[in-house]
Amino acid sequence: MLRDRPAGSAAMLAIFADEALLRGGLAFEAALAEAQAAEGLIPDTDAAAIAAACRNLAPDIAALAEEAAHAGTLAIPLVGRLRAALKEAHPQAAAAVHRGATSQDLADTALMLQARSGLEVLVVEAIRLETALAALSERHAVTPGLARTLLQGALPISFGLKTAGWLTGVHGARMRLQREAGTALMLQLGGAAGTLAGMGEAETALAVARRMADALGLGLPATPWHARRGAIAALGAALAILAGAAGKMARDVSLLAQNEVAEAFEPRLPGRGGSSAMAHKRNPTGCQVALSAALRAPGLAATLLAGLPQEHERGLGGWQAEGPVLADLFILAHGAVLAMAEVAEGLEVDCLAMARNLAAADVGMDTGASALLVQRALAAWRGALGEG
Amino acid sequence: MLRDRPAGSAAMLAIFADEALLRGGLAFEAALAEAQAAEGLIPDTDAAAIAAACRNLAPDIAALAEEAAHAGTLAIPLVGRLRAALKEAHPQAAAAVHRGATSQDLADTALMLQARSGLEVLVVEAIRLETALAALSERHAVTPGLARTLLQGALPISFGLKTAGWLTGVHGARMRLQREAGTALMLQLGGAAGTLAGMGEAETALAVARRMADALGLGLPATPWHARRGAIAALGAALAILAGAAGKMARDVSLLAQNEVAEAFEPRLPGRGGSSAMAHKRNPTGCQVALSAALRAPGLAATLLAGLPQEHERGLGGWQAEGPVLADLFILAHGAVLAMAEVAEGLEVDCLAMARNLAAADVGMDTGASALLVQRALAAWRGALGEG
Amino acid sequence: MLRDRPAGSAAMLAIFADEALLRGGLAFEAALAEAQAAEGLIPDTDAAAIAAACRNLAPDIAALAEEAAHAGTLAIPLVGRLRAALKEAHPQAAAAVHRGATSQDLADTALMLQARSGLEVLVVEAIRLETALAALSERHAVTPGLARTLLQGALPISFGLKTAGWLTGVHGARMRLQREAGTALMLQLGGAAGTLAGMGEAETALAVARRMADALGLGLPATPWHARRGAIAALGAALAILAGAAGKMARDVSLLAQNEVAEAFEPRLPGRGGSSAMAHKRNPTGCQVALSAALRAPGLAATLLAGLPQEHERGLGGWQAEGPVLADLFILAHGAVLAMAEVAEGLEVDCLAMARNLAAADVGMDTGASALLVQRALAAWRGALGEG
Amino acid sequence: MLRDRPAGSAAMLAIFADEALLRGGLAFEAALAEAQAAEGLIPDTDAAAIAAACRNLAPDIAALAEEAAHAGTLAIPLVGRLRAALKEAHPQAAAAVHRGATSQDLADTALMLQARSGLEVLVVEAIRLETALAALSERHAVTPGLARTLLQGALPISFGLKTAGWLTGVHGARMRLQREAGTALMLQLGGAAGTLAGMGEAETALAVARRMADALGLGLPATPWHARRGAIAALGAALAILAGAAGKMARDVSLLAQNEVAEAFEPRLPGRGGSSAMAHKRNPTGCQVALSAALRAPGLAATLLAGLPQEHERGLGGWQAEGPVLADLFILAHGAVLAMAEVAEGLEVDCLAMARNLAAADVGMDTGASALLVQRALAAWRGALGEG
Repeated sequence: MLRDRPAGSAAMLAIFADEALLRGGLAFEAALAEAQAAEGLIPDTDAAAIAAACRNLAPDIAALAEEAAHAGTLAIPLVGRLRAALKEAHPQAAAAVHRGATSQDLADTALMLQARSGLEVLVVEAIRLETALAALSERHAVTPGLARTLLQGALPISFGLKTAGWLTGVHGARMRLQREAGTALMLQLGGAAGTLAGMGEAETALAVARRMADALGLGLPATPWHARRGAIAALGAALAILAGAAGKMARDVSLLAQNEVAEAFEPRLPGRGGSSAMAHKRNPTGCQVALSAALRAPGLAATLLAGLPQEHERGLGGWQAEGPVLADLFILAHGAVLAMAEVAEGLEVDCLAMARNLAAADVGMDTGASALLVQRALAAWRGALGEG
Repeated sequence: MLRDRPAGSAAMLAIFADEALLRGGLAFEAALAEAQAAEGLIPDTDAAAIAAACRNLAPDIAALAEEAAHAGTLAIPLVGRLRAALKEAHPQAAAAVHRGATSQDLADTALMLQARSGLEVLVVEAIRLETALAALSERHAVTPGLARTLLQGALPISFGLKTAGWLTGVHGARMRLQREAGTALMLQLGGAAGTLAGMGEAETALAVARRMADALGLGLPATPWHARRGAIAALGAALAILAGAAGKMARDVSLLAQNEVAEAFEPRLPGRGGSSAMAHKRNPTGCQVALSAALRAPGLAATLLAGLPQEHERGLGGWQAEGPVLADLFILAHGAVLAMAEVAEGLEVDCLAMARNLAAADVGMDTGASALLVQRALAAWRGALGEG
Repeated sequence: MLRDRPAGSAAMLAIFADEALLRGGLAFEAALAEAQAAEGLIPDTDAAAIAAACRNLAPDIAALAEEAAHAGTLAIPLVGRLRAALKEAHPQAAAAVHRGATSQDLADTALMLQARSGLEVLVVEAIRLETALAALSERHAVTPGLARTLLQGALPISFGLKTAGWLTGVHGARMRLQREAGTALMLQLGGAAGTLAGMGEAETALAVARRMADALGLGLPATPWHARRGAIAALGAALAILAGAAGKMARDVSLLAQNEVAEAFEPRLPGRGGSSAMAHKRNPTGCQVALSAALRAPGLAATLLAGLPQEHERGLGGWQAEGPVLADLFILAHGAVLAMAEVAEGLEVDCLAMARNLAAADVGMDTGASALLVQRALAAWRGALGEG
Repeated sequence: MLRDRPAGSAAMLAIFADEALLRGGLAFEAALAEAQAAEGLIPDTDAAAIAAACRNLAPDIAALAEEAAHAGTLAIPLVGRLRAALKEAHPQAAAAVHRGATSQDLADTALMLQARSGLEVLVVEAIRLETALAALSERHAVTPGLARTLLQGALPISFGLKTAGWLTGVHGARMRLQREAGTALMLQLGGAAGTLAGMGEAETALAVARRMADALGLGLPATPWHARRGAIAALGAALAILAGAAGKMARDVSLLAQNEVAEAFEPRLPGRGGSSAMAHKRNPTGCQVALSAALRAPGLAATLLAGLPQEHERGLGGWQAEGPVLADLFILAHGAVLAMAEVAEGLEVDCLAMARNLAAADVGMDTGASALLVQRALAAWRGALGEG
């Protein structure tokens, strides 16, 4: 927190906080009981009692964490507490808690609920960033500047084409993320062996799963995905790509803000970008956040990829590693996008400096098809937004 | 080669060999000249001369490689050779070669042409693997076996549900790969600054790009993507996920083939799986290939992700690193899928051993909804195949 | 926490908790003031007032975190609070706080103080694991079992040679970690540009650094290392290798504990390894912890490696990303080693099962030089321990 | 090659080429036979015949590669060819080839022989780079310039302190590499199960190993390290850190060479750094090579780390993945160091531009302890070189 909390990221941090994980786990148990009751597997009264207990349970999280760590899974101490809460008044309901489910059903479903919330917050922020970049691109569609290639001055470009490149990058990454979320955000329900055993007839068990998926707002997969983690890995890669798209913009802004270039600057925000040693400095703190995120995301995405060859029906150590890694990816991507949204909205552009640097390079003023390309980028973005 | 050539991978190795890269670069130059002629930017006769020179050029690849390494880009020595070949007979055509284009236009387009060929070969192999897995799933839809979770015997499952899990994993990964290829396989044409300068009016330049994309069978992006590498990174991640899906199957087969478990085995292929020290051994060599690929792919995918924050219009060191990395990913994914296709097609299943191990675990015979879940997985696969 | 807290890791979590980071930052400021006073740069009374303020400061950590995130650095709000605390009673001391230092001096030094504490805890745990493995190796130096290669039964081996392999792996990894810590655990003090400007004459400034290094128990580097992060990356790689050495043992134990192999088992600990769905199961939870750690560590180590090409005197986004990554590596390595120490100390070995599986493989009983090799491994370990 | 051959890297490419791997494998077999003869396990005449056959064998490498890929190991077809070559004239020697050894003994030892050669070439190049940087540091010990932190102008620094930072980074990385090579460059000899079975009495078998290690110039480990790959992973990390140290210098040089900064430039080499589109450009091609290498190395190092939890006595898929990865790391690190050596030796420094940019920043002229720090860095380097 003190070291790695991105500014303004309170919403995303809350989504992946312990309290939210706990609520996700309890939502799983409540939805399971209610779906089983609807299919006649347990009495409605038991389901109601379980759901109430899930709403009311407020365990000490530190103690629960220590027990979960010792047990090797959150479900055991959590289900234990639920049963204890029900035992006196509803002994039959206590026995019906978690029926037919396995620890991983709870863990995966809770993670997907967090991911869904994270996605919502992140998409809003990404669209905010895209919108600001679209405005910049429109405004600077014909503002001439010096293109740099291999870090050397090249030919003229319009500044709007540069920002349109950022826009297209962020937009494409956000669309991929939404696409992958559509594949990944699935209910997990299979029971111990992924066969839905212990939940009545096959069709009944499937109906329970369908009801739960509907109730929780998750997709229903063809089969349980306990040991099939490709969609999670793809979600992680999509988050890393979004962080990278923000990082690309941050790289450029930080290069443009160098003293000797001085073409564009992060907005001045009170209390941001100062130096503990030099009062005159104005550090590109937003870029720092995005570049750090873009540096950290690839290794996390690689972890999810490396975990794919999991053992048999439910593996050992692989899926258990995914939760904190996916959470970090959401937090980093969100921090990066949020930081760049603020930068884009308040970007200080010095057109005169651009013209001066361009003139110094002595490469003429022909920005080629820059203006047309900006319009194409904007049209593609608006078109997709309209459809979306 | 001697150390890391996957068996049977000759086709994919050829696609990413130097000769193919050279042909791709020359295809770019020919298509550029022909499109420019069609748009009236250069005479048809010059375009014809350039195209002929591209067909006939057969440089010494070792010398070209050394020059490209020294120059920092393949385009410079390659265009130099083209011009030299044309200079005598077609001096005007010599001057028209590579007009308006930049080194990266050639490099990126050639890479995309290789990627497209690689995709075709890989998809064929993946469907072969899926087909074999579908047959296994059908055959063993109700064959009882012991599910293992956290590497411990759990409850009964049908063997067909295990193989259906492999099927769904490979199929989902292959579909993602095709989806990402649709986004990534784009023409690169922007010229030095990505503005299409030096190719006439904006609309004309765009028409050149459209013609080239059509001629080369690549997509036309809204704007050049010199510094926007998200789609390449996503392609790499999709390849790593496919390798991982093959690796997951390999993990399971190798565990099932352990002496003490002995439930399934790779097919016996003459000359494969032997031991230089122990004549009695039968090593799971196909699984070895897939597991090695699944181990190597994540780091390569992470490299593409780490390269996203590239500088300005065309970066320094980032995109230049992608070619060999993407080539390795295609070769590894293909080797893994091919190895598993052979394993799936010839898998030796010992149903008796499965029954024996299941009985020893003393967990009953209830495979739950296994059969129904197998049917759901097969239906989803067949449905997608029908649409595809 | 709730999701990824390794059992028993309270000590390491505390070392990398916010409170410890805060204390490290304040220790830096106190040592700086005291060293500057000793060199006559500030009055002793000011140094004493600053040191007292550092001891007594107890800021609200959540508020501090939010401010640090906004500012882009912890030093600014922390130094601000120190000055505020001193302003009334010691206005001159308030002005002397953080004199000549830069934010990164504080951040890096505080991280190194945490790393040093983490190292101590981790080394103790690693030696505990090594000691247990040495005892196992001695006990089973001639216990015959079946070697497995490429996951197939091979030739006889003594079980002690297997455990001696684990021992040598953990021991080598621990020695590398200590070696790299000797290189990495350095004071950071350079001021804004890494030139020690603003701290008097060059020799005086250097004397301040030397005093601080002594006072804080860190090494004194030849020059500030703001943008030279190789030692940090090497420390991270060494932690990942240690996690991997524990993971290697965990891989083997989990394979030996499979129902059909049944040669060795994690100790039974009350409340550990249960299943929320199957009362009969005994999950290898310690192995799960170590395997998860070994899966997560490589991506984190790669992040530190990827961050090496930092810009100029102090980079943007690179070093800022290292703190949470290094913290995760310490926590994961510690969790893995601790889990395996418990497993090694209580490992249940079934020599009869080993003999039975060996006999079934029909490969004779010749364990070759196993016993001699065990003695060599033990001698090497004891020799190094004696020297260390 | 055509795409990713670093300029001037012919020596390193040859070391990791197929021919060298083949020679390494044959050197292993010759040394094995000779050591076994010296210990009386096989007749001297057989050993001589085997050694002669190893010298003379010149198989078709493409065919051998295909067979090795199919078999899953190089040793089987290679030993087969050796035996075929001996069968007629020396049938007894044919039978004695590879006695007691396993495929991995050959593969690992051959890789270590390549690594040793690679190390020699790389260390020479690194010392060349260090020497050039030491000269730069000396020359510019008091040349004033503007320090940049977080990519913003900060305070004055001497240019020699910047180059001294590069020197210390490369030097530290090279020393780590040599240290890790001392741990990693070990003979592999254990036979099928790592027990040295099949080579006579335990002491005799050990004597064979000792003789082989001496003959091949490799270390003798306490026990075979078939499944203990920490030293290989550490070697890979050390190579990545060296590439990163070169990349850090490349990052700075490329930033200094920007048009608007223009303080330092790569040397002009005929045919290097040109642009296929812009005659006026001078691209920092050496920096490009080093930055690409620094981008690719972390994922490769992570692969070696991820492979650590290998199964049992000799794993499946893990160690088999290491050879090409380690080869790539050597080639990349060498390419990066070589490129930077050329840059350092010919670096064009514009002291006037430095002074101008410093003056424009209006932060005075006090370079603090820069000169003293440069002397400390040089003294540390010279001291280590003297000892080395």
